[in-house]
Amino acid sequence: MRIGLIGASGHYAAVLKILAEEMQGSGSNQSEAGRSPAGRSGRRGHSGPAYLAAIAMTHETEKAKIESVRRHPAYLKGKTVEYDSAQTMLAQADLDAVIVNPPYGWTASYILQALERGIAVYSEKPLATKLADLELIQKKAHQTATPLVAMFELRAHPVTATAARLVAEGAIGRPVLAFGQKSYKLNPDGRPIWYADRELFGGTIPWVAIHAIDWTRFITGLEFAQVYASEISVAAGRLAPIATAGAIHFTFRQGGTAAITFDYLRPAEAETHGDDRFRIAGTEGVLEGSLPRNELLLIRRGQGTIQPPLDETKPLFRRFLDALYGKTLHGKAEMPMTADDAIASTRAALWAQKAADEGSLLDIAEGKDVVG
Amino acid sequence: MRIGLIGASGHYAAVLKILAEEMQGSGSNQSEAGRSPAGRSGRRGHSGPAYLAAIAMTHETEKAKIESVRRHPAYLKGKTVEYDSAQTMLAQADLDAVIVNPPYGWTASYILQALERGIAVYSEKPLATKLADLELIQKKAHQTATPLVAMFELRAHPVTATAARLVAEGAIGRPVLAFGQKSYKLNPDGRPIWYADRELFGGTIPWVAIHAIDWTRFITGLEFAQVYASEISVAAGRLAPIATAGAIHFTFRQGGTAAITFDYLRPAEAETHGDDRFRIAGTEGVLEGSLPRNELLLIRRGQGTIQPPLDETKPLFRRFLDALYGKTLHGKAEMPMTADDAIASTRAALWAQKAADEGSLLDIAEGKDVVG
Repeated sequence: MRIGLIGASGHYAAVLKILAEEMQGSGSNQSEAGRSPAGRSGRRGHSGPAYLAAIAMTHETEKAKIESVRRHPAYLKGKTVEYDSAQTMLAQADLDAVIVNPPYGWTASYILQALERGIAVYSEKPLATKLADLELIQKKAHQTATPLVAMFELRAHPVTATAARLVAEGAIGRPVLAFGQKSYKLNPDGRPIWYADRELFGGTIPWVAIHAIDWTRFITGLEFAQVYASEISVAAGRLAPIATAGAIHFTFRQGGTAAITFDYLRPAEAETHGDDRFRIAGTEGVLEGSLPRNELLLIRRGQGTIQPPLDETKPLFRRFLDALYGKTLHGKAEMPMTADDAIASTRAALWAQKAADEGSLLDIAEGKDVVG
Repeated sequence: MRIGLIGASGHYAAVLKILAEEMQGSGSNQSEAGRSPAGRSGRRGHSGPAYLAAIAMTHETEKAKIESVRRHPAYLKGKTVEYDSAQTMLAQADLDAVIVNPPYGWTASYILQALERGIAVYSEKPLATKLADLELIQKKAHQTATPLVAMFELRAHPVTATAARLVAEGAIGRPVLAFGQKSYKLNPDGRPIWYADRELFGGTIPWVAIHAIDWTRFITGLEFAQVYASEISVAAGRLAPIATAGAIHFTFRQGGTAAITFDYLRPAEAETHGDDRFRIAGTEGVLEGSLPRNELLLIRRGQGTIQPPLDETKPLFRRFLDALYGKTLHGKAEMPMTADDAIASTRAALWAQKAADEGSLLDIAEGKDVVG
């Protein structure tokens, strides 16, 4: 299976690691016969294990990272072809799937180009930084039925995955209140300068808070109705324009509330880079998770406090590959998420960013301002 | 010093405990000479330790509690006079101070009556359940300069008090993001039926969330600008109408955001009745507090994670009494809060409740709806 890489601006490295395992024969599908995925167009569907067939840089800040890709075990000298542009690569490299990871403001454009060619997409989040582009992506994904998965990798964290299963099983009854926390360290020198360019960066909400937005939908199974958000920039230095801290307030269509805080204020000396947490309260209990501590707590009516064993999980990209194989082999392997699901979390993030930019209360479902 | 008690619907018992200590000669002012506070009117200012001089029931659901007051060490047979009505008590009992603790919808009316007579007020929160009444209270408090303190007792919690001191000392730089959590158990059978009557109860935000609203102002030293809030009722049984869970989103006038969640969803089996927490992130560090665990954590830029020793604190009512004594003795003891301070937290809670009721984004400072 021929995989392409567009850009090297986000979490592409985690994907390459899985691809290297696959290429070296230790992928989870290794024992399965065939390994011959079928693309939709007919001209694709290369058999054999997935490998890095092509790469294209999208922005000059990716130079050093592309250089490190050349030394990565996923890079096969003589087999991995480098292209001058992503457009050319998509047109010529005959890919089954593409990893989309340019500066975030360019993601939507490459997703659209890939979908138009029926190439399965595994993309960095957010899928778009503008609502209009996201709607084009949704239209195209529906038209082509080409797989589109976003790097909402925290769905594959054992704490998050177990929480989602427990809620689906009714462990806390009806969920009505969700809290999510995204807190990161910020080393301005470690980030490319385009983080200070809102057109390329997209905003701290669609880049950072989006994970909590996505896990809230993923764990509760609820959809957002309205959103209000606010943020503040207090960073110094070259990344001064980026929002440093803020909060998002969603109501659920099914009733209830989600509050999400996000910040780049975690001191450098803190134990872990991030401090991701959630709390989901329902009519029958409360679930609390800390991702860096790998801790999940369930306080359940009639039972008290329980530390449920955590589910084993697979990375989303691993499941993406399995699904591409599975299509041909036995038709039962499923994509880790539908395109609509990935789009819904991105849409909620973009509406939240709009609410913060405008200081307005917005109706996601209706797509408009709410006048009090 | 003659103290009166109006109603027995909230946290009056904690106040009686301190009064009993005072009456039994173990109060913290015991060693000070004089103990002769001066009321503002001239006709008051009874010397000697504070004692429970008068009580009045306000609602039939207080019957059993008033009966237990009669067996309380603060109740002095022959000295504690019972009145048919709070109005009569305020007119006839010649009080230096009054504890106001009726059903919450009636609090404002009794505060106003006490202030009009120049009687110092120690009142359950919220000080009012209607914004118009709160403005009357503020006007009267300014006119009479009579002390008015609200039972924001969590200010006297060592975790909260230490956090406030640390922020004031600059430990986290400029605070820009605050999260507060109020989570309680709800035993409907343990609450009087008027909790289901919004006019008497006032709302879950001014009754429960108000503590987090107040500690956010207290710890950060910041004032709220705008507010949006949402809540949901999923309780069953006799208290079905009360809001069970929700969240409040404030922006600060000085910039930055506060997110507060509140719920009555804590299972009965949980370790503690409440699970009060906060997190305050600033430009130089992050403070995290858990009140039930008596835990405070400071992650400070350049220093790492510290568990600062907790300050020793005095209950607010103890400080209220000290201030009433101190006025005469050396003029330096201060009330634990100004009337304006107590009113500001109540006002923020009432605007938040209004935002939840209307589903609107509201401007607290300007006193109006925000049109997006």
